[in-house]
Parts: sequence; structure tokens; C-alpha cells
Amino acid sequence: MLVSQVETPALIVDLDSLEENLCLFKEQAEKTGIAMRPHFKSNKCPAIVHKQIEYGAKGITCSKVEEAEDLIDCGIKDVLIANQIVDKGKIASVATLAGRCHLGVCVDNAKNIDDLEAAAAVQDNIIYCLVEFEIGMNRCGVTTKEELYDLAAKITAYPHLRFEGIQAYAGHLSHEEDFEKRQSASDEVEKKLTEAKEYVESKGIKVKEVSGSSTGTVFFRPKGSVYTELQAGSYVFMDVAYGKLKLPFKHSLFVLSTVISTENNKIIVDAGRKSAASDQALPIFLEYPDIPAKVSEEHTAIPKENRDVLVGDRLHLIPGHCCTTVNIHDSLYLVRKGEIVDRVAISSRGKSR
Amino acid sequence: MLVSQVETPALIVDLDSLEENLCLFKEQAEKTGIAMRPHFKSNKCPAIVHKQIEYGAKGITCSKVEEAEDLIDCGIKDVLIANQIVDKGKIASVATLAGRCHLGVCVDNAKNIDDLEAAAAVQDNIIYCLVEFEIGMNRCGVTTKEELYDLAAKITAYPHLRFEGIQAYAGHLSHEEDFEKRQSASDEVEKKLTEAKEYVESKGIKVKEVSGSSTGTVFFRPKGSVYTELQAGSYVFMDVAYGKLKLPFKHSLFVLSTVISTENNKIIVDAGRKSAASDQALPIFLEYPDIPAKVSEEHTAIPKENRDVLVGDRLHLIPGHCCTTVNIHDSLYLVRKGEIVDRVAISSRGKSR
Repeated sequence: MLVSQVETPALIVDLDSLEENLCLFKEQAEKTGIAMRPHFKSNKCPAIVHKQIEYGAKGITCSKVEEAEDLIDCGIKDVLIANQIVDKGKIASVATLAGRCHLGVCVDNAKNIDDLEAAAAVQDNIIYCLVEFEIGMNRCGVTTKEELYDLAAKITAYPHLRFEGIQAYAGHLSHEEDFEKRQSASDEVEKKLTEAKEYVESKGIKVKEVSGSSTGTVFFRPKGSVYTELQAGSYVFMDVAYGKLKLPFKHSLFVLSTVISTENNKIIVDAGRKSAASDQALPIFLEYPDIPAKVSEEHTAIPKENRDVLVGDRLHLIPGHCCTTVNIHDSLYLVRKGEIVDRVAISSRGKSR
Repeated sequence: MLVSQVETPALIVDLDSLEENLCLFKEQAEKTGIAMRPHFKSNKCPAIVHKQIEYGAKGITCSKVEEAEDLIDCGIKDVLIANQIVDKGKIASVATLAGRCHLGVCVDNAKNIDDLEAAAAVQDNIIYCLVEFEIGMNRCGVTTKEELYDLAAKITAYPHLRFEGIQAYAGHLSHEEDFEKRQSASDEVEKKLTEAKEYVESKGIKVKEVSGSSTGTVFFRPKGSVYTELQAGSYVFMDVAYGKLKLPFKHSLFVLSTVISTENNKIIVDAGRKSAASDQALPIFLEYPDIPAKVSEEHTAIPKENRDVLVGDRLHLIPGHCCTTVNIHDSLYLVRKGEIVDRVAISSRGKSR
């Protein structure tokens, strides 16, 4: 079937561009010797994850227990939940999932470590723990090397937990548009983490992994970086927000839309915020990238002026934010040169528990 | 089950507040003699729709063909799709659905009217058409009374279409925070529409319905208003954006969340933009309504300071925008005085076709 025959709005992925992005990330990983552990939050789609593994990813990062379950059900063997899991029911689920793959979680307080050990002991499984270290994002995580060491030591003392290393996601740098600032702040992060790691290791605890980094900072990680795993997610698709950073990754994700009205000197399509998320930036049309769009729930409009567009024509929206866009669609079409190759489930859509 | 036992994030609706909102809208409709045709886009949930019908709604408004199908499957007998349907496949679906209920659609161009008649004729069903009239929102719709009359006359001449009246949604006023401005602009809309209606009727075509108005302007419709149907949707739930208007409706929709970290002098919960939509306004905590929150995909944070909150505690987020929030959840819990009464499907979640 041709893309032009699909009912709209529809989420489509251009496979040629997607594969170029997968290649670029792979080359960077090979050049620096840092492993790829891409973040599931950006695609929530096992068909894309299997391509990431095929292109060299050692494992996957996700945010939620439900996402981890979906990934493990789809055959992924190495999953990191990059979050604190504190609810007793969810901790029990984590302990169960730990029997089915190499499962990591993040921690930033002592009581949570006790709870994880208790649940893992009941099932006699091993949970791999990374201590979250706060490196400027001002969200979760401990802030001093001493606290980091204390939690690492606590984990190490337990029989059903393994201290895997440090989670250090510098989300505050992801969308910094100033190249110099992004570069120098990334260097600062490397320095802070190197110090913290050396401190913990000087006291006899091996820090195996340092996991983090996003699409905006992947190319700032040098050979010999303190990071051992890169968690970039949006690089597969890109979006308007990341487009501003002029990275070498290509837009591969689009919301296909149909023109439903050309009244009032406007071109108005049948897709809005409920199809192309706009929480980080407004969507733009691939066909008219320089024209700011007016966006409502189910409509996007640009001035018509002398543009030769008719009711019924198709246009492609580049989502403002890819992660929240996949989270409103149940499936996406994989497309190669205008032909639909497959329709695949976004099976972790809405999985926020 | 108690609300405190639900795994988070979870969407919950307080039934007492919801019913107060339903009563208020009903009283306003009775006082003015204007019928209620609430908008489905805000709840996408048939269990809520059946309550709206129980509280006097004559029918329902929706945006999409897929939503209309869901509503009709759930037994609703009078549905208006307040949009232009231009795709041939979708027009065929509309013609089919028209055999199952009183089905209205909006039009703003002549060619579309031809296509609707052709499809309705094939199935020998009747489609009810409202001409969309542009009253300041600058989106779809004709702008002059002459164009309005021409399209009405075209519809009237066809055997499988019925001219039902005028669609006039003043979305640009919905969130106008200045009471005086909202009031005077609403009066302007009434004036413009009265003129347009009188013109069409003076030329011999009866305008049965004038449909429109939103949560922000429902109380500006006087007895004897030109409007015959009110399409308000958000009034059932409210949200942060509508909260700014100081309307008498109550917040009834919340995203229940769990505190996962109290590091860095922050209270950080396990719900963010992927659970509480932030496209019109950022979510706020019911418990701390005056503290601006920092929101990311799966986290919301406020300063901890001397607040007595522990990891594991539950907090309620008021979504920034209710319509886009229900569009990311598959179901919601109906709650009465802290007890869960039912879990109901948001069966039109993601239905944007």
C-alpha cells in the first residue's frame, strides 16, 4: 500500500532515515568504545528496539516497570529502569522481572535499598542497582560522593542486590541550543563523575557502569569517557525541539495529515495536539518548515497565501516532541520510499506505571 | 478498594464534584432553554457520556469519525461530528453511521457537499449538515452570510442531506481570562450570528440549530440566545487552564501520583507530561496549588522546604489540560469519598481519525 492511501492522522516512520540514525549512533559508539543502551521512552515500540539491538545496542533503558515488562516479553535480555521504584507492589514486580533478564533499577535512598533486597530475597533473584547521582539536573539523585559511596556500600552488603554503578542523566543539557555551552557543561559533568567514581573505587568498590547522556550530548562523549553507556533515545526519530540543535541525525518520524479546509486564507489539516505532541515545541510541516503553525487539539493551520494546496491533499507534520507523540499513538507505519512495509504496535504507549 | 491502594500514575474522577458540574450545566440549560450537546473530546469516555445524557443532554458533539463510531456503538442516538470530513473512505463511514443514528457533520465548501450526497445516496441514508461559520477563531468555516446561504441552499437541494443549521464555535474566547472581554466578545458573536441566521431565513431557508459555545462562555448565553445547543466539554472535569477563569465548575479529574524521591530539597513524584498533559498549562498539585511545579516526561517536582512529605506518599495532580490528558490514559477510576466505585474505559482515547 502507498502512504498516500492511509487514513489520517497516521504516525509514519521513514526507514531510510531511521537506519541512517542507527548507523550514526553505532559509529559514534564504536569510535569511543562506549556501549549503547538507548532509551525506550522515545519509541515505546519493540519493532524499533529490535532494530536498535541489531545495530549494536547492548541493552535498553526505560522509565517504568510496565515498560520493562513489555521489553522483556519481547525478548530483550538487558533492561535498566532508570528510575526509583518505591511502591511495594511495583518492587515485587521488579523482583519477579529480575528472574527473567539482567534487570537494573536506580536508587537514591537507603530505605528503598532495604525494600528491594527484601523483595529480591523472597524470589531469590538478583536486582542490579545503580545509584543515581545528581549532576545538575536538580531532580532525583544524591549530590555528594560520600552519599554515593554509602549507598553503594549498602547495596554491596546485600546478597540479592549487585552494585552496578552510577546513573547520571544530564537532562538539563539535552536541549541547550548553544553548542559551546553544551560542550563545556558536558565536560564539567565528565569531571564531576570522574571524581565521584574515583572516590568510590578508592574505597574499594568497583564502579562497573556509568550510564546516561542524551541525543543532545552523545557526540560530546570522548574516547576514554567516564560514561560506559549512552542512553540517547530521540536520535532514532528526532523532532522540532532536537531539530534546533543541528545534530547530524535526520527526521524520520512524521504525522501524516489531510487538508480539510482552505477557507480564510488558511491551510488547515486534520491533525493537532492530539496527534503531534507540542509540549516541548510546536509541530511544523515538512513541506513548509519555515512557516509557524497555529495548533489546536485536532487542527493545525498555516497561512495559505499563494500556496497551491487543495482540500484532500496530504501534508507531513514533524512532531514538536517525539517521546510524547509516540505516547498518543497505538501503532506506526514503517515506510520505505513511499510504500508501507509494515504496521507495528507501539505496545508501551501509555505505560507510565 | 481505596484510592490509596491504586498503583500510580492513575487517572481518577471524583464523582461528587463531577455530578455538581453536571447539575450546574443542566440548571443553566433549563434557565436559558438552550439544549446541551456536550463535547466528547474532553472525556472520550462513554461512562461519562451516559451520565451527561442522564443529566439532560440531548446529544453529543465529537471531532472525529472514529469517536462518532464509538459513541454510536455505546447507544448514543444523536451525534454531531463538528468537523469537515473530506477523505473518501471517511465520508463512506459517515454515510454508514448515518443509518444508525441522527448524525450531523460540518461543511464549509461546495465540493464536500457533493461528496457527502453521493456517499449518502449509495447507502440511501440521511446526513444532517451544519454549515460552519467563522466567528473570530480564524480556523475553518465561511465568513459571510452570502456564502452561508449558498451552502445552505446547496444542501437543501439534495435528497440525502438535510440542512440542520450553523456550527459556530468561538474557540478563541474559551480561555480569555478577562471577564469583561469574554462577555463583550460573546455578545459580538451573538450579534453576528443573529444577522447571519436572519439573512438565511429571509431567503426562505429555516435555520433549525445554531451549535457552539464552550466551558468558558456557557454562562454568557442569555435566555433567547441565537444558540440552540451548547457544546461545552471541559466543564465535567476542569483543569488548570480553565481554573484561571474562576468559573463555578469544580476540579473533578486528577492524576494520582507517588513521591519517589525527596533528595535535593525536592518533592518528586512518578507522573509527568506523559500522565498529565501540559500543552495549555502546567499541572499543579491539589495539595500545593500555589507552588509552580517543574515537569518532565515522567516526573513532577516542587521544592520540599519544610513540607512534611515522605517517599511513598500520594499526591494529586490537576492536569494542565483535561482533553489531552484523557487522550493518554486507557481508563479512569470513578471515586466516591475515597473509595473506588468503578474503573471505566476511555474507549475513544487516541481516536483521531
